[in-house]
Amino acid sequence: MSSKIMGIAASDGIGIAKAYRLVMPDLSFERKQIADVDSEIDRFKQSLHAAKQDLEIIRKAAIANLGQDEAAIFDAHITILSDPEMVGQVEGNIRQKKVNAEAALKKVTDHFIAIFEGMTDNPYMKERAADVRDVTKRVLSHLLGKTLPNPALIKEPVIVVARDLTPSDTAQMNKKYVKGFLTDLGGRTSHSAIMSRTLEIPAVVGTDNATQSIKDGTVVVVNGLKGFAVVSPDTHEVSEFRKQAQQFQQEKAEWQKLKNAQSVSKDGKSVKIAANIGTPNDVKAVTDAGAEAVGLFRTEFLYMNSDKLPSEDDQFMDYKQVLEAMKGAPVVIRTMDIGGDKHLPYLKLPEEMNPFLGYRAIRISLDRQNIFRTQLRALIRASKYGELRIMFPMIATVDEFIAAKNIFLEEKAKLVKAGVAVAKEIKLGMMVEVPATAVFADQFAKQVDFFSIGTNDLIQYTFAADRGNEHVAYLYQPYNPALLRLIKHVIDAAHKEGKIAAMCGEMAGDQIAVPLLLGMGLDEYSMSATSVLRVRHQMKQLDSNKWAQVAMQAVQNCQTNQEVKDLVEGQLKDSVE
Amino acid sequence: MSSKIMGIAASDGIGIAKAYRLVMPDLSFERKQIADVDSEIDRFKQSLHAAKQDLEIIRKAAIANLGQDEAAIFDAHITILSDPEMVGQVEGNIRQKKVNAEAALKKVTDHFIAIFEGMTDNPYMKERAADVRDVTKRVLSHLLGKTLPNPALIKEPVIVVARDLTPSDTAQMNKKYVKGFLTDLGGRTSHSAIMSRTLEIPAVVGTDNATQSIKDGTVVVVNGLKGFAVVSPDTHEVSEFRKQAQQFQQEKAEWQKLKNAQSVSKDGKSVKIAANIGTPNDVKAVTDAGAEAVGLFRTEFLYMNSDKLPSEDDQFMDYKQVLEAMKGAPVVIRTMDIGGDKHLPYLKLPEEMNPFLGYRAIRISLDRQNIFRTQLRALIRASKYGELRIMFPMIATVDEFIAAKNIFLEEKAKLVKAGVAVAKEIKLGMMVEVPATAVFADQFAKQVDFFSIGTNDLIQYTFAADRGNEHVAYLYQPYNPALLRLIKHVIDAAHKEGKIAAMCGEMAGDQIAVPLLLGMGLDEYSMSATSVLRVRHQMKQLDSNKWAQVAMQAVQNCQTNQEVKDLVEGQLKDSVE
Repeated sequence: MSSKIMGIAASDGIGIAKAYRLVMPDLSFERKQIADVDSEIDRFKQSLHAAKQDLEIIRKAAIANLGQDEAAIFDAHITILSDPEMVGQVEGNIRQKKVNAEAALKKVTDHFIAIFEGMTDNPYMKERAADVRDVTKRVLSHLLGKTLPNPALIKEPVIVVARDLTPSDTAQMNKKYVKGFLTDLGGRTSHSAIMSRTLEIPAVVGTDNATQSIKDGTVVVVNGLKGFAVVSPDTHEVSEFRKQAQQFQQEKAEWQKLKNAQSVSKDGKSVKIAANIGTPNDVKAVTDAGAEAVGLFRTEFLYMNSDKLPSEDDQFMDYKQVLEAMKGAPVVIRTMDIGGDKHLPYLKLPEEMNPFLGYRAIRISLDRQNIFRTQLRALIRASKYGELRIMFPMIATVDEFIAAKNIFLEEKAKLVKAGVAVAKEIKLGMMVEVPATAVFADQFAKQVDFFSIGTNDLIQYTFAADRGNEHVAYLYQPYNPALLRLIKHVIDAAHKEGKIAAMCGEMAGDQIAVPLLLGMGLDEYSMSATSVLRVRHQMKQLDSNKWAQVAMQAVQNCQTNQEVKDLVEGQLKDSVE
Repeated sequence: MSSKIMGIAASDGIGIAKAYRLVMPDLSFERKQIADVDSEIDRFKQSLHAAKQDLEIIRKAAIANLGQDEAAIFDAHITILSDPEMVGQVEGNIRQKKVNAEAALKKVTDHFIAIFEGMTDNPYMKERAADVRDVTKRVLSHLLGKTLPNPALIKEPVIVVARDLTPSDTAQMNKKYVKGFLTDLGGRTSHSAIMSRTLEIPAVVGTDNATQSIKDGTVVVVNGLKGFAVVSPDTHEVSEFRKQAQQFQQEKAEWQKLKNAQSVSKDGKSVKIAANIGTPNDVKAVTDAGAEAVGLFRTEFLYMNSDKLPSEDDQFMDYKQVLEAMKGAPVVIRTMDIGGDKHLPYLKLPEEMNPFLGYRAIRISLDRQNIFRTQLRALIRASKYGELRIMFPMIATVDEFIAAKNIFLEEKAKLVKAGVAVAKEIKLGMMVEVPATAVFADQFAKQVDFFSIGTNDLIQYTFAADRGNEHVAYLYQPYNPALLRLIKHVIDAAHKEGKIAAMCGEMAGDQIAVPLLLGMGLDEYSMSATSVLRVRHQMKQLDSNKWAQVAMQAVQNCQTNQEVKDLVEGQLKDSVE
């Protein structure tokens, strides 16, 4: 009999395939005294050999899936397994202490890990510690007769079932075989969720216990449209879901036709649908999707993918590349949002009890101005290659915005004086993600050229609930009328001063939220590139006047997130042709 | 020449005395091989003896200052130093390994600490780990020829200069000798600050580097009214500060006359001035100060001062005691606010990346209803002994308030059915500390009997800045017009529905904030008992109509915290008779 597992809809679509459990087996063991030293050393050598064979296969698969560069990590792993120093120490340990190979291996590798981790000033060596840890697990699994999941070896269609997905898990998979993701942890803004949307793979996250109730090889349906999974569906269910999956594919094909269309509502109101990017490489997906702008370029990745502060020239090249690729369409570049959950190995930040309420983003930029000024110079120099807009993250007070703006003006004046060509106008804006700025938007609107509402953080702070914390996940309430009021106030405040109101959070591509946002008059919607066409398609069905009324009703008469959701769903159903 | 150190005014008054540095000396050492084992063991024994003598003296001082119970901790410390097992192991270690006493002591005590800390299920044994750590430091200091600060031994007037103050530091001091506190860390809501206000000792906190620039014995002036310290003042400065200190003492004497007075503004508007408490023992200070109510009873201390969940009967007795002591005056009891920075050794809570945005307060209560229902039953049973009001902390959504209210109604109905006598009316209210509730106060006002604005948390979330984090301390902005707008909205919303608007955060007793709050119509002000008379005195000088206009101006025309502060200070100066 089939059973249903509820979760959070994280990436659209429906996938049906056998489960592939990406779950680490229990690798615990007991330290034991052994009598026959030679056969124990033999057992160790065999496991070592088997682990090397694994890695050779994985390396080949990784080269095929990801390319030579990304596969280099597995070369490093193989090298560790061949290191005579380490192998010799393990053998010596077995021989002298007469302990089992598991214990000897652990003892020796723990020692190496401690040494590498002790090199706190050397991020490269710290990464080596992670490598040794990985490799140890692999040898240990062979010693214990257990099987490590090898996502690189997936060779048939699967639904990947995991506690959570890390970037290194997903990097190894051949995406064409992955028909869906199903995870215990995470919410709509977790890494797993964002990544599955980028890859356009159906996903349901936050199920709590999918890994416990699903066995390897069981057939699973992942319904990423509705947020549930069905385990061991019967024939009838399978055919029903296949039909729905096909329908969804047809819809997607329909959306493709809108690639070169304008974004307009049913009653002819124009909006801009833009996409978020993290690196210059992401721009292709933006133009492929027919997005009208880059609504958010998160520059922190330039800092994170580097082993030192990126130079002004390096940044300049990256910004120029994006601006040129967008051919005059607006590109909103956000200055560095480091801190919070994002750290740099080469930049020492304080240990904080609540990093999301801590020293991050503009707070660091205003405090360590050298870093900020370098970034601003790179941006200003790149400005002549397109339509650049600069945005400051985590602004909380008017003083902060003015301070940031003044630094920008100083650097611009210096560059102009030095004869550098810069764009005639560079719009300066801010993220609205700290509740104080939403409340005070009418005053901020006098200072800025545009707002971009960052809903992930705004929701987190407005309800005082960490969006990564599963215990308070129920407080991620994008339709809560209290939040909608803040958003409406921001949009109205912007318009009153003739400024642009944009949104670059998760919510801007949400099917329930989009009609309300249109009704409230939001100008620009920035989202994952993969959502652009779906939203443009939805926009075509929506009457802005009707939704202005519904939005007003939501804000004035509804009390809860659920009430607003019900209201919108009811209205959406009514308006289906 | 004198020098000035800027900081944050944390407790009113001016203190002048010699500096007492409460700073831990550097106890680092190197492991060394030694030749003469016997003389090394001798050195260890001497240090052990000296440490015991210290502790005997401290114990006697603690008995005199704090009483036998609180001094028991030092008995425990002396016992550890006399433990033959530990002493024997250290000696053995010196003898066998031929290492210096410092290294041997560290080795042995680290082992004991690890064992105690490993007993995670036994909070008693975990505390023993802290004891061993304390005692080790003391012996080590003698081995290294350094002096540990012994606050219990202070015998002459001093200004205590410290990085930060812990409860155990302050517990040991004879308060009559402490003329002021000066700390590197902390803000107005840190432990040091709250404690100094409770003790009525002038304090300046958050100076960054007072401990680095002040030597033991240097004369220091702490100006807790203005937030600075003067190091090595000249004769002229000393006499000037003495005059100001005297003036302040006279003012305080003046305030005392208002002990039995009503709280009314100059133009006859009545308000309530209440006090915050943490335990039933604090009520005496409340009645002594002539407060008109208990505006906040933080019940988490009942949970924290216990080694298991407090029983319904134990809680009942505590609540009854407070209600009876207040003789019919309102007592607002807040249900448990555990989580965040407050943990219980016997209640397992998840490890969180951002505990202030995590699983805490009402979120736990609604999830683990047994704990919540027990507390509500105790409260309802106590209700007939006075004017009880119940308040829920960290409400974020209307659903949460309704869920909590329904549980309350269920428990009340059960008790009534069982024949228990309960008060005719028990008012139910909520803290307004999550920004969403302030924004949505008009809807919440339909559900509640009263609001109590918790400004410490509300400011923290509204500006997304941890109030305990020195790196973002500049964002603790109680006069920021964005915050004032939220407060005004809450007060207006309450009044529109005929409900009470109270405040129980730091801000309710702040001299700049009080006039604005009066102007915005706040009904009840709850604060440290020590501030009650000062605020009642200030209230008498204020014209509510005039301040209504100033408040309106602040909210509509000012852009920054500083602008509001300047506006209020200007107006306060103008209105001095």
